[in-house]
Amino acid sequence: MSLDRLIENIIQKQNPTVAGLDPKLSYIPDYIKAECFAKYGNTLDGAAAALFAFNKGLIDALHTIVPAVKPQCAYYEMYGWQGMKALHDTVAYARAKGMFVVTDGKRNDIGTTMEAYAAAHLGTVEVQGERLAPFAGDALTVNGYLGADGILPLLDICDKEDKGIFVLVKTSNPSSGQLQDLKLEAGETVYETMGSMCEAWGADHMGRYGYSAVGAVVGATYPQQLKELREKLPHTFFLVPGYGAQGGGADDVAPGFDGRGLGALINSSRGIMCAWQKHGFAQEDYAKAAAEEALRMRGQLTDRIGKIG
Amino acid sequence: MSLDRLIENIIQKQNPTVAGLDPKLSYIPDYIKAECFAKYGNTLDGAAAALFAFNKGLIDALHTIVPAVKPQCAYYEMYGWQGMKALHDTVAYARAKGMFVVTDGKRNDIGTTMEAYAAAHLGTVEVQGERLAPFAGDALTVNGYLGADGILPLLDICDKEDKGIFVLVKTSNPSSGQLQDLKLEAGETVYETMGSMCEAWGADHMGRYGYSAVGAVVGATYPQQLKELREKLPHTFFLVPGYGAQGGGADDVAPGFDGRGLGALINSSRGIMCAWQKHGFAQEDYAKAAAEEALRMRGQLTDRIGKIG
Repeated sequence: MSLDRLIENIIQKQNPTVAGLDPKLSYIPDYIKAECFAKYGNTLDGAAAALFAFNKGLIDALHTIVPAVKPQCAYYEMYGWQGMKALHDTVAYARAKGMFVVTDGKRNDIGTTMEAYAAAHLGTVEVQGERLAPFAGDALTVNGYLGADGILPLLDICDKEDKGIFVLVKTSNPSSGQLQDLKLEAGETVYETMGSMCEAWGADHMGRYGYSAVGAVVGATYPQQLKELREKLPHTFFLVPGYGAQGGGADDVAPGFDGRGLGALINSSRGIMCAWQKHGFAQEDYAKAAAEEALRMRGQLTDRIGKIG
Repeated sequence: MSLDRLIENIIQKQNPTVAGLDPKLSYIPDYIKAECFAKYGNTLDGAAAALFAFNKGLIDALHTIVPAVKPQCAYYEMYGWQGMKALHDTVAYARAKGMFVVTDGKRNDIGTTMEAYAAAHLGTVEVQGERLAPFAGDALTVNGYLGADGILPLLDICDKEDKGIFVLVKTSNPSSGQLQDLKLEAGETVYETMGSMCEAWGADHMGRYGYSAVGAVVGATYPQQLKELREKLPHTFFLVPGYGAQGGGADDVAPGFDGRGLGALINSSRGIMCAWQKHGFAQEDYAKAAAEEALRMRGQLTDRIGKIG
């Protein structure tokens, strides 16, 4: 009923990172695509098969080094329901290898509709008396613009199925301040208010490391806000995008951690997925390149924050 | 490059409503479920087949009366990638029958990731030099918490493919005020600010009826806010949930319309889908019951707002 399984994985691997699995066809080696398109034609089925084959290689290479993966739903939806099957297969494969899966869907809605998303991504659905798991991730990113009605339906499932959520608080993009940084009459900004709501929503869903099942997304590109939020939200675990390709480095994300080296999960997507292209590896070595990059990133972070746990 | 196709459909049918297609298994007549589960077993494939068969009957009965349908993604994702196939088939079937399809996904992300969602739901994706359409709706609901970075990538596709979006401004749920009603230092509330952003984002994407490609979601359950927003946002078309089951009536939604009876699209989901259960129809007459309810709703609204266009 919390993010404890994630935290234990981080401690065990001594690695506070998550590998984003946001596969675009242009990131995927030609030999994988050639095989899939030969088998399925130039179709969405072919594209989806290539996504999963690419991910499988990455997971095989990363699962002993990296505690978690974060598939971004958009890159699967972009290839239709066939792509969503690749998402399903990716989640199942990563979990079977012992990785914690954060499904990055930024879903949001209210009441029974939010319950449907919770069942889709974290829980199960009843079909003729049987309970089936549609996508079965370990955690889901969500958008809290609709208030508690959009969050509370998830917490039942977090408790029952030992899952967690990450609520968007301060995102990593240039225009994140357009709404999130606006100052409210009461003195706080919009994102600080959202952060405080995360603490409140999580209060009855605490795990044994002092963090609740309700995490927050806080971008690496705003280190000052990351630092302030770490102090202000002591029970809220942070998912931190923006490392690497978006410009954040180890010094930028360090304020997101507590004294034990916990409290933040740093995401790298392109940095790991595209390491083979960036560092001139042969395409057959794409997974090896990803693993080397993941080790390099772990080194950068643990040099900065020390032993974890 | 606007919502003109929607508006023309509304005028032609003299009906400013959209039928929400949020199918749960409990709404679907037993004879449909029995057939689908006999064919596919008690599986997600069976559930997905039942969703599509149910929707098909509704679309057949509604497409001459109602200008648009709004499938809610959560109820399809809840049945896995198989459910997403039912979403795809539903969108295609409704469009083939001349209906305008608003995909209710409340999607949100930034940059290339938002482009991926835009391609998924409104546009096309390139696969080996061919352009394929993953879900191909006419409009998508989106959440603007991330600011312009989450919205602008959609507007290219709106222009190129003649599509539109609806941004969450003031939602219909009880806790919508928790963030949306907070007053900013500058004097406006969060939702008013989001509404003003919609006007600004739409300015270069205007259609011939004076409404842009950027619509807004404004709940029927807050009539006073609906009235104020109609005055404040003259170029922003409203998608209005909360009619019927959530408590809003014709008087509540009337302030959402302009003097021509345009400017608002009123959603009913359970009211139409579950009419057969509520009004004691035989299960085989579920689509007839839906059509009667849709006609009744059209009557209530046009009695109040008069001739449209």
